[in-house]
Amino acid sequence: MLKKIDHIGIAVHSIAEARRFYEETLGLVCEKVEEVVSQKVRTAFFSLGETHIELLEPMDDSSPIAGFLKKRGEGFHHIAYESDDLLMQLDTARQQDCRLINEQPVPGAGGKQIAFLHPGSTGGVLTEICEPSKQ
Amino acid sequence: MLKKIDHIGIAVHSIAEARRFYEETLGLVCEKVEEVVSQKVRTAFFSLGETHIELLEPMDDSSPIAGFLKKRGEGFHHIAYESDDLLMQLDTARQQDCRLINEQPVPGAGGKQIAFLHPGSTGGVLTEICEPSKQ
Repeated sequence: MLKKIDHIGIAVHSIAEARRFYEETLGLVCEKVEEVVSQKVRTAFFSLGETHIELLEPMDDSSPIAGFLKKRGEGFHHIAYESDDLLMQLDTARQQDCRLINEQPVPGAGGKQIAFLHPGSTGGVLTEICEPSKQ
Repeated sequence: MLKKIDHIGIAVHSIAEARRFYEETLGLVCEKVEEVVSQKVRTAFFSLGETHIELLEPMDDSSPIAGFLKKRGEGFHHIAYESDDLLMQLDTARQQDCRLINEQPVPGAGGKQIAFLHPGSTGGVLTEICEPSKQ
């Protein structure tokens, strides 16, 4: 069962530039900036209520985010939902003939298990489902 | 001050088709479907935690959503933040040289006051700020 929106991922050319809007115009506070080396992406998290805004900056030109920016420009990249049972959620998606990017959960930030559903099966919205660590 | 993400707006060709993913794959419940005649848009709201997913379907070819779909295809359309002081938030945006689509609040759904910030000033993200009715 889905519990909440965990975060909204937004692709940007530069976190240093983009964060000004979130900090100075919207008044949000940056929780952390970290690099996900496996994805070649630098991320900045802003907390808001029960969810987060995640800015995504490519670490180099071979990053998937660099490809996204080239094709689509800056803007919404993905939405992540928190589930209390990711495996069940993936089973349901398979039964509905939803195309999965990750057939099985993979490790994500903060000890979470995550999997992506393909935007071709979700009305154009790259969709992540994540499950927090049980510990 | 921003309190939470109020909703995520997603442009779709057909609510009847797109809602299947949200209901059958994600397991969300549709709260209401309503037409906003002034915007020529049909909307479907799905509640999740403190926020909502809002599907947006054009009522005819002259709808702004029809233009968006033609240019970008289905997918993320806007993010809406709830504020406890929309006028102050717009003043701050002006001071930061943020381009406003609505210089003053306009009435939105559910008795809310709303205003949009231009994606050219927000890193490509069409951004709505809304304030609930005080009554």
